[in-house]
Amino acid sequence: MPTTLKEFETVFPKLVEDLKEHCQKYQLPEQALKWFEQSLTHNTLGGKCNRGLSVVDTTQLLLGRKLSDDEFFKAATLGWMIELLQAFFLVSDDIMDSSKTRRGQPCWYLMPNVGMIAINDAFMLESSIYLLLKKYFRQEKYYLDLIELFHEVTFQTELGQACDLLTAPEDHVDLDNFSLEKYSFIVIYKTAYYSFYLPVALALHFAGFASPKNLKTAEDILIPMGEYFQVQDDYLDNFADPAVLGKIGTDIQDNKCSWLINQALKIATPEQRKVLEQNYGKKDIKSEAVVKEVFNELQLEQVYTKYEEQRVGELRQKIASIDESEGLKKEVFEEFLRKIYKRSK
Amino acid sequence: MPTTLKEFETVFPKLVEDLKEHCQKYQLPEQALKWFEQSLTHNTLGGKCNRGLSVVDTTQLLLGRKLSDDEFFKAATLGWMIELLQAFFLVSDDIMDSSKTRRGQPCWYLMPNVGMIAINDAFMLESSIYLLLKKYFRQEKYYLDLIELFHEVTFQTELGQACDLLTAPEDHVDLDNFSLEKYSFIVIYKTAYYSFYLPVALALHFAGFASPKNLKTAEDILIPMGEYFQVQDDYLDNFADPAVLGKIGTDIQDNKCSWLINQALKIATPEQRKVLEQNYGKKDIKSEAVVKEVFNELQLEQVYTKYEEQRVGELRQKIASIDESEGLKKEVFEEFLRKIYKRSK
Repeated sequence: MPTTLKEFETVFPKLVEDLKEHCQKYQLPEQALKWFEQSLTHNTLGGKCNRGLSVVDTTQLLLGRKLSDDEFFKAATLGWMIELLQAFFLVSDDIMDSSKTRRGQPCWYLMPNVGMIAINDAFMLESSIYLLLKKYFRQEKYYLDLIELFHEVTFQTELGQACDLLTAPEDHVDLDNFSLEKYSFIVIYKTAYYSFYLPVALALHFAGFASPKNLKTAEDILIPMGEYFQVQDDYLDNFADPAVLGKIGTDIQDNKCSWLINQALKIATPEQRKVLEQNYGKKDIKSEAVVKEVFNELQLEQVYTKYEEQRVGELRQKIASIDESEGLKKEVFEEFLRKIYKRSK
Repeated sequence: MPTTLKEFETVFPKLVEDLKEHCQKYQLPEQALKWFEQSLTHNTLGGKCNRGLSVVDTTQLLLGRKLSDDEFFKAATLGWMIELLQAFFLVSDDIMDSSKTRRGQPCWYLMPNVGMIAINDAFMLESSIYLLLKKYFRQEKYYLDLIELFHEVTFQTELGQACDLLTAPEDHVDLDNFSLEKYSFIVIYKTAYYSFYLPVALALHFAGFASPKNLKTAEDILIPMGEYFQVQDDYLDNFADPAVLGKIGTDIQDNKCSWLINQALKIATPEQRKVLEQNYGKKDIKSEAVVKEVFNELQLEQVYTKYEEQRVGELRQKIASIDESEGLKKEVFEEFLRKIYKRSK
């Protein structure tokens, strides 16, 4: 049985206590201690925790049995570390993107009295990962591997974010700067490594099956799967029913380097390209409607469906040919794919 | 002979090449690669590099001999890691403090086209530390100790910064929030650990003398020394000749939780306290002059001199009683103290 969000969330308060205890060892003044707790709670809780949950579920699949209480706690702790990593990124991304809300609440930097202190709060969310790793995994032979994994994935995500910010600044539209190669780099580095590869890599270490071959196989499947997931996201932003999606897409007005605009630029006539250049990234619904019109002319919905079928076909083939002799399981990847294939939100 | 800044700086270009090479392995697009290089250069170079240099000098003192070329390169690389850590902090502190210039140049976030991208650039400066540690120290038995040391000192500095930001927000003056205990916490955590303890701890590891006892002795001396250094800084901000100091002090107008205001609050009469409350942290020279007047009435210059003599006396005693049997050398600390005692800038 997959872990519920509720079960996963039972672990978090203990981790907050651990982090507070560490601060108290340093005699951190009360005001700052409370602040840290608020930042942890506001920024780490309230999401769907898909990444964190998948560490627990993957561990269970790899071991082929229910986890003991201690194993559940430890796997969930690894899961919460991904959620902390994501909190670190989201708090800072929201400042960099001038976002207003996150998970139905004001962004942390827009909360009363926070402002740019949020930057230091983001750092402390990142540091929390390594405090918890040290507390719970120091005695494991794979402790150093976990640290290096978090370092590497963190840097990869930062590279993706750097490329994204430079390719699509909110205030300066230049479609010549876009390309499908850059698009792939951005989504793979900014999203796929920490959202898809990291949970499985952590579970492989914890389950004792993190051979170089298994890690490589996981990467070879999960990176293209993560790329497909983001392409879907970009597709849904424009083509999904906002009532089902739960939000109104803003990629066109926000000058996002999305999969759709890159596909459009690849096949547009010079006239259509001109129309896109004149209307993409403009903060008004008329320009947005013109861009949507061109997307329809170019039949991007069909282009997407073709892409999806091809990519999913490739993924299924890769999964089918997995060598399970070193403890890896096809099920792990089937489960990831099942959750995202043909999703509508 | 102590290392010159020039010698130390010869190492940096190689480290930039290493970091770029790592990015190229990931096929980072050219634009982002150039950006990273500019951020590294703008933010890490241009300072006095006292912290970085002291890793090399301390290593030399501990080993009691000139370093080989390879040893020099590695010790300097550890030194540059502190400079990268400091760059990570300064880039983000400047945003949090709305600073305008740094090392005679505009702050990174105020450079053309940078803005809030600086936050992600700060992250990449931090990540660079661990990339270089992995490249050059992975095979050493103390590799994990170095990683944990950087993690711990980073978190300590973040705690100091958190406490500072909460105690003395630029826009809200409340002297009730100040205290000498908070002051000590802030300067020890925000400055002393990474500026004083970290260089010597790194040198101890590299020289092979990082026994728990030696690390503890170093901490016991360098933390109070770092605190004294910051007290001096605060003293000079108000009492030094700006022509000698090279800048005009702004702590009073900036509502800084400085040593002087905390000493003043400790000994002020209720009337003097009221005057301080009405004038501290105001952005005008008249209020500033009133505060300076109270500082003079309270004879803070003499209070400082007394503090300095007492603290330096204690430090000299601690240094004199160092047990050198596990490879630690009194000279290391004498050298640190010599550089700061009675400094005028």
